[in-house]
Amino acid sequence: MGSLGPYQRKHKITVVGSGNWGCAIAKIVAENAASNPAIFEEKVEMWVFEEKVEISKDSRHYDPSSPLCQGPQNLTDVINQKHENIKYLPGITLPSNLHANPSLVDAVKDSTILVFNLPHQFIIKTCEQIKGKILPYARGISCIKGVDVNEEGIHLFSETIGKILGIYCGALSGANIASEVALEKWSESSIAYDPPHMDSKAPSPNRSPSTSTENLVQFEHKDVSGQLSRVKLQALPSDYPPVDHAVLKSLFHRPYFHIRVVSDVAGVSLGGALKNVVALAAGWVDGMGWGDNAKAAIMRVGLLEMVKFGEKFFGATINTRTFTEESAGVADLITSCSGGRNFRCAKLSIERKQSIEKVEETELNGQKLQGTLTAVEVNNFLKKQGLEEEFPLLTAVYRVLEGSMSVEDIPSYIER
Amino acid sequence: MGSLGPYQRKHKITVVGSGNWGCAIAKIVAENAASNPAIFEEKVEMWVFEEKVEISKDSRHYDPSSPLCQGPQNLTDVINQKHENIKYLPGITLPSNLHANPSLVDAVKDSTILVFNLPHQFIIKTCEQIKGKILPYARGISCIKGVDVNEEGIHLFSETIGKILGIYCGALSGANIASEVALEKWSESSIAYDPPHMDSKAPSPNRSPSTSTENLVQFEHKDVSGQLSRVKLQALPSDYPPVDHAVLKSLFHRPYFHIRVVSDVAGVSLGGALKNVVALAAGWVDGMGWGDNAKAAIMRVGLLEMVKFGEKFFGATINTRTFTEESAGVADLITSCSGGRNFRCAKLSIERKQSIEKVEETELNGQKLQGTLTAVEVNNFLKKQGLEEEFPLLTAVYRVLEGSMSVEDIPSYIER
Repeated sequence: MGSLGPYQRKHKITVVGSGNWGCAIAKIVAENAASNPAIFEEKVEMWVFEEKVEISKDSRHYDPSSPLCQGPQNLTDVINQKHENIKYLPGITLPSNLHANPSLVDAVKDSTILVFNLPHQFIIKTCEQIKGKILPYARGISCIKGVDVNEEGIHLFSETIGKILGIYCGALSGANIASEVALEKWSESSIAYDPPHMDSKAPSPNRSPSTSTENLVQFEHKDVSGQLSRVKLQALPSDYPPVDHAVLKSLFHRPYFHIRVVSDVAGVSLGGALKNVVALAAGWVDGMGWGDNAKAAIMRVGLLEMVKFGEKFFGATINTRTFTEESAGVADLITSCSGGRNFRCAKLSIERKQSIEKVEETELNGQKLQGTLTAVEVNNFLKKQGLEEEFPLLTAVYRVLEGSMSVEDIPSYIER
Repeated sequence: MGSLGPYQRKHKITVVGSGNWGCAIAKIVAENAASNPAIFEEKVEMWVFEEKVEISKDSRHYDPSSPLCQGPQNLTDVINQKHENIKYLPGITLPSNLHANPSLVDAVKDSTILVFNLPHQFIIKTCEQIKGKILPYARGISCIKGVDVNEEGIHLFSETIGKILGIYCGALSGANIASEVALEKWSESSIAYDPPHMDSKAPSPNRSPSTSTENLVQFEHKDVSGQLSRVKLQALPSDYPPVDHAVLKSLFHRPYFHIRVVSDVAGVSLGGALKNVVALAAGWVDGMGWGDNAKAAIMRVGLLEMVKFGEKFFGATINTRTFTEESAGVADLITSCSGGRNFRCAKLSIERKQSIEKVEETELNGQKLQGTLTAVEVNNFLKKQGLEEEFPLLTAVYRVLEGSMSVEDIPSYIER
């Protein structure tokens, strides 16, 4: 990664979240922390929502003489002793320098880089629990797919995190099915990171703690609804390696997980949201037996509408080439329309002649599809703007979901 | 299609070629000729390379009392009486206004629109047979996928046709698996058509034949090798509807075959060539069992290199958005990497641990893959330009084919 210079301090990393994607990312981050000792502290913290698990008799970890195999145990104890999240990422050995921590506040303490990877409905609550309890100059990376859309506008999860915590937060998204990444099957991902310019010569709070309040950069951020927010960021002390694109690549890039770091946070986040809506249409078309040409046509129109959505609602703050060139754009769209769960459930709903809610119930074990939720949210937003007709595929997906259009009508509706 | 005005003459259409894609396109064109009687003559000619076929006893056309079922028959007779190309597009009923003609010269006589749809190795020979025997103001559309690449440069098949015949020729390409189009499964396609500006008020040769030589537009064309050619085009007589984007859409667009007409002939043609090379890499990766993330990564890098190839070697004469927005670009890439034959044979070569030549032999009945041929041609061209390293995926495919690189090396080689 080139010379990062001799810095006196190293970055401490915490992964907030430990589901299957959380653990897959924590594995990568811990592997890289161990292999880049000049930049990162070896031990990586992972916050785990504590629950009881039991090592079953057919598990490779089962040993009748071990206290860990005597009835229900704490998930964190099993992870720390067996180096496996047997509940959410079974079969994958986690690095021994990854420490499962049941205390959220303890896990994030003193960390300079916080990696957020938890279901989006828990973001606000989790951030509020650690507000004021993290380093004020910490930086965040959100691995949470998608955006938060409502009638008023579109908000990036990275912005929500950054606002609550008063830190800068970038985003990671890409063509990444968690189980494949965990198995170290080769894939690519995009990191978007573009903090406002800060004086890298800012003194360390260790050496001159009284000046730390001067290391604040205030910048204005205008979201799509026109809402202006003022964000104050504290500069990273100069005895840490600066958190730049090179350091982020050192932290996330692996031989099996290729990272491109870009600056377009909105594009990377938006791609991860809209592709789920397109995947529903691809699943329906595939379920109808219309073949590969038709599915490719849906994906082409979907990509066009993603670019148009970005241009229209994010203007110059987005780089539309993110959609056509980065893993978080076209590649994630392709993966999601090949075997993602929005695609699969939509396809099943046609094959079984069931509503998509019914398929969700039987296939997803109580979880909800992200695509159906996003389709409704995006439609509310487009309707309020009077722009439904300009996004015929996004609109068609919503109408099929609400029952006012049939799948057979999609080709002629999106033709214009 | 809006009002095209009351023209005294109608366009006569000939399809040159009658393989499975030739017949699928001829079916579309004949359907549209019948439903647009103000613009097109109803009868559409299709040149068929004559051969003997036999209607088998289990055919739906078998009738022991019919003379057509007494031993080998001319393919054209079977098509004209049974309205089916039983050899190359079995099971599909062709329109009754489509006339199979074994005489190439007779088939193209007096036609104003010539649709070329035959294997590319026959283009030059076929065009030379009809040179000087077609209307001098005819227009062509090439449905032949790909481009002709050699060390000296890249030539579009549409240009080759246009040069030999002295006419303007556009191109049709898209995410179109012929059998699915023939079954009227919904798909999209791109037509690229951008003739030099001509005076539409040119007098008809019927009314003032002596002035016909004045209706010539001479324009210069510089190909990628820097070779300059002067092309003389004769204006279409004004008593025909002008051959513009609207007329081409009337001729090719069907409810199940959606056409977008653009001006970028080079982009549309190049997409159809390079995607076959990418499909080989996608097939290998899939054969390795690397999963959907990896396949999507290959397609993303492939799309990037297609855009870069266009920018680098066609400059301002290409619109790179063709690759990311049109059916002939990203959608055709997706279809070809899902189930196209380059993809399938590459995948089988890994699964069976056989060379791709061996798979070709056993799977393609003597035919050769387009992707392997294009990969070699493109590599010769890039090598001569000293630019192999700038197109790592295209180069990696060539090297795997020649045996100097293994599929396992592709991810790290294309990473840079």
